[in-house]
Amino acid sequence: MTKNKFDSFAITAANYEALTPLSFLPRTALMFPDRRAVVYGERSYSWQEFYDRCKKLASALNKIGIRKGDTVAVLAANTPEMIEAHFGIPMAGAVLNTINTRLDAETIAYVLGHGEAKVFIVDYELAPQAKSALEIHGDSDLIVIDILDLQNTINPGVLGSTDYEAFLASGMDTFQWQMPTSEWDAIGLSYTSGTSGRPKGVVYHHRGSYLMSMGTITDWDLPRHPNYLYTVPMFHCNGWGHAWTMTAVAGTMFCTRAIVPEDIFSTILEHNISHFGGAPIVLSMLLNSPAAKGFVCPHTVELMTAGAPPPASVLQGIEKLGFNVTQVYGLTETYGHTVMSTWNSDWDTLNDEQRSALKARQGAAMVQTAGMRIVDMESRQDVPADGKSIGEILIRGNTVMKGYLKDAENTEASLKNGWFHTGDLAVMHPQGYAEIKDRLKDIIISGGENISSVEIEGVLHKHEAVSLAAVVALPDEKWGEVPCAFIELLDGAAVTEKEIEVFCRAHLAGFKRPKKVVFGELPKTATGKIQKYELRSLARSGRLN
Amino acid sequence: MTKNKFDSFAITAANYEALTPLSFLPRTALMFPDRRAVVYGERSYSWQEFYDRCKKLASALNKIGIRKGDTVAVLAANTPEMIEAHFGIPMAGAVLNTINTRLDAETIAYVLGHGEAKVFIVDYELAPQAKSALEIHGDSDLIVIDILDLQNTINPGVLGSTDYEAFLASGMDTFQWQMPTSEWDAIGLSYTSGTSGRPKGVVYHHRGSYLMSMGTITDWDLPRHPNYLYTVPMFHCNGWGHAWTMTAVAGTMFCTRAIVPEDIFSTILEHNISHFGGAPIVLSMLLNSPAAKGFVCPHTVELMTAGAPPPASVLQGIEKLGFNVTQVYGLTETYGHTVMSTWNSDWDTLNDEQRSALKARQGAAMVQTAGMRIVDMESRQDVPADGKSIGEILIRGNTVMKGYLKDAENTEASLKNGWFHTGDLAVMHPQGYAEIKDRLKDIIISGGENISSVEIEGVLHKHEAVSLAAVVALPDEKWGEVPCAFIELLDGAAVTEKEIEVFCRAHLAGFKRPKKVVFGELPKTATGKIQKYELRSLARSGRLN
Repeated sequence: MTKNKFDSFAITAANYEALTPLSFLPRTALMFPDRRAVVYGERSYSWQEFYDRCKKLASALNKIGIRKGDTVAVLAANTPEMIEAHFGIPMAGAVLNTINTRLDAETIAYVLGHGEAKVFIVDYELAPQAKSALEIHGDSDLIVIDILDLQNTINPGVLGSTDYEAFLASGMDTFQWQMPTSEWDAIGLSYTSGTSGRPKGVVYHHRGSYLMSMGTITDWDLPRHPNYLYTVPMFHCNGWGHAWTMTAVAGTMFCTRAIVPEDIFSTILEHNISHFGGAPIVLSMLLNSPAAKGFVCPHTVELMTAGAPPPASVLQGIEKLGFNVTQVYGLTETYGHTVMSTWNSDWDTLNDEQRSALKARQGAAMVQTAGMRIVDMESRQDVPADGKSIGEILIRGNTVMKGYLKDAENTEASLKNGWFHTGDLAVMHPQGYAEIKDRLKDIIISGGENISSVEIEGVLHKHEAVSLAAVVALPDEKWGEVPCAFIELLDGAAVTEKEIEVFCRAHLAGFKRPKKVVFGELPKTATGKIQKYELRSLARSGRLN
Repeated sequence: MTKNKFDSFAITAANYEALTPLSFLPRTALMFPDRRAVVYGERSYSWQEFYDRCKKLASALNKIGIRKGDTVAVLAANTPEMIEAHFGIPMAGAVLNTINTRLDAETIAYVLGHGEAKVFIVDYELAPQAKSALEIHGDSDLIVIDILDLQNTINPGVLGSTDYEAFLASGMDTFQWQMPTSEWDAIGLSYTSGTSGRPKGVVYHHRGSYLMSMGTITDWDLPRHPNYLYTVPMFHCNGWGHAWTMTAVAGTMFCTRAIVPEDIFSTILEHNISHFGGAPIVLSMLLNSPAAKGFVCPHTVELMTAGAPPPASVLQGIEKLGFNVTQVYGLTETYGHTVMSTWNSDWDTLNDEQRSALKARQGAAMVQTAGMRIVDMESRQDVPADGKSIGEILIRGNTVMKGYLKDAENTEASLKNGWFHTGDLAVMHPQGYAEIKDRLKDIIISGGENISSVEIEGVLHKHEAVSLAAVVALPDEKWGEVPCAFIELLDGAAVTEKEIEVFCRAHLAGFKRPKKVVFGELPKTATGKIQKYELRSLARSGRLN
């Protein structure tokens, strides 16, 4: 490409600044110093106080030698310290590695080692599993800092030589921290939950986290000064980046150590909560809570939910309580939500059932997402937008990870041909709205037909005796593969394979019906996810026949 | 800087996409194909139709040989064609050069020549001045395309060989247009109005225009689907970038050829206008219109205003009609607004006068602005935030221009030391809010004191006989400089220098009072701006004494 007259300009410090969500904080602290930034029970910090604490954290980390590219790991609940970590750690030039609090000690030790953590900040409640992890990890150079929740008298164990508040006090709020030199610099490290094999370390950069915030503000219609209840665990894709996003719009973040429906309802009323997020299980918990009975919300609460689509009955029930649910889809590799079921006002006139079906779709590519495609698994061509043809979801854009840490092979494989390969299977509806059908490795290909294990599981879950169901492929001489169902029954329930077969006949096309049903407890990970790969290898072993 | 473990990732097409506001259009057309994008009287286009027209424009330009780095100039009113130009021209890889419709023929010819326009799109109403400009320009290779307003039977002149609709028809809506290869590629070329000397060609890039849109959505609290009345001339910093911004949020843009208060009021009611923008003169026009008397708006209309701060009486009056005014500040060099008088809810309890004073401030740096400083003219250090100390406003960030086209000297001078030098003088209030006091070259330095000519002009404008007033520095042996006032009286009004002196004594400190008053018509540019440099040279010539 030859240079033209518009290409002769030098990039200068006057007209180029690395994009980073850290830029939101000094601005909001300057403009709204006295507004509340973070509230946690009786504790609350104004934006000036919060910024000062973040600067102290950065300063304290700097004092103990933390520099650019170092990893600081945090194992904590959604308390103010966790939000401060999202600013103070990258303000020191370091990379924030939030660790899933539900992991077993061995996996935590693996993460600490693989991520090369130099500092490990641990919430007092998680001290027991952290202690075991440290013993396995065995690196005596790792600096451990304890978060002691001052509202609790229980203290299961102090692991480090210093506690968080004392550490903060060693820093200075006059610390001259630096913005990143490049927007491609790493800001976060998040490990995938890893249903099979070792978890992979997903690396985020400043540019991505900045654009994630701007995209969320735009597509979630986020106004200035939302009251945000932080129920999304901050170890999941940095709580979808909301700590940064809420800072850009000078919101107030309400922390909660645990998800208790009664507390959520009372917090909504007491603090005029306008926005919150949660997995579909949170929606069910709210709806099934006795507190839901008397709940009347005087204002609409915006609720962002990700993960498996909530059943229509849950959606309708939760909306009647005063919540407006927005379904999103994304992965750790896409900084969280990258697709959103943005409501189209053309749908206003539809009935409840139709509306729920539309709301249960994962949605269209968000504004920060450069592209979403669903491609046929054979031809790799886009499937038609017919709501039927299943293909793999591909994503590209600035909120796709840098890659997997120290894993060039998986990085290249997942980012090949200019697209991130999600491994999720979906159909495309008109107007760019996708609907997830299955994980790629969970699809069953029978006589050339793609069968969604999710669809079959959905049917099985409707049976009154079924507690949990998982469907995988069973090798079959004639069809290649056929569906095989593993079912965990409710306590005291009893049902035969034949009864399940009859039930499925009423709800599923012939080729989709399980050809084999196995009853028993299902194998699960430490975080409660069903280990389908174990069921798959069991099915492949031939031991079922 | 040594490389660390997080630096080893390659940038790929999967995780990096050049930021461009063009990305908003295919997404909105896909998600909301049937919603209205643009409305102009009886004409209206859905997002699908609008996108198809933009693709045709890009295709037609490509067919006649327009390529990356070529300039396409547009001299037009705010009609659908002008909005299409904001997408279709950069979609062809070209640079959009909007030309101020109030310029004289000679300056238009200069702009066409300096910008090296290859295509010139002209609105039928502006054909007479365009014709003169083309004669002066004299380049017979320039392709001229006429916009014929189909709602008008008047046709003052067809200049080109083709009209806009026929040109569009030569393009194809299947055209495979390309996103920019670099986000630093030019998207726009806007000439400064140039109160002295030749106008300068300010170059915008895709990254800046994208971030301008995201910053406006965030800071103006722009919801999805606003109904936007496009009264800001699109030749002013691309109408502050709103054509791109409204596309990101799938708004509807209502075009208007001229600003007629009666029409604005009726459009607001008929089309449920939620947002619009305009110079303070538009606010005065609305307020002083007979139509304002009976106007009752059933909803709040958000009104963004830029330029000289509106007087408190205008602000209070316009807000009583149902408008919520947000004052912004910026320059052509900053893509338009870069500072905003964001409302702080702490101010809700203040009285009307106090609120107006706060609203009249230009405000704090917007989220897309990396920094704003006000520095003392001598020491170049930040002035204290005391609301008194005057200094020059400096701006930096991604929405500062690439530079001035073919003018390395002025580019370097304006972007020196990592900051864009606005040449505007202001004071800093607490919480980062700036208030403009004067243009740098208009400040009067008397006995070491900085005197704002704007402040003195504000006092003179309150005198019932004064139509226009301009104050400049008059050389003085004792004080260095003293204020000198040039006054244009209202028709039939009469006042003496002595009376002005007495009036000023009641409103201004001694050193701020004009030491010389000159009556007569003031020199103005083609666009109606007072040519202060002529008054300054008159004052310096000694011919006044």
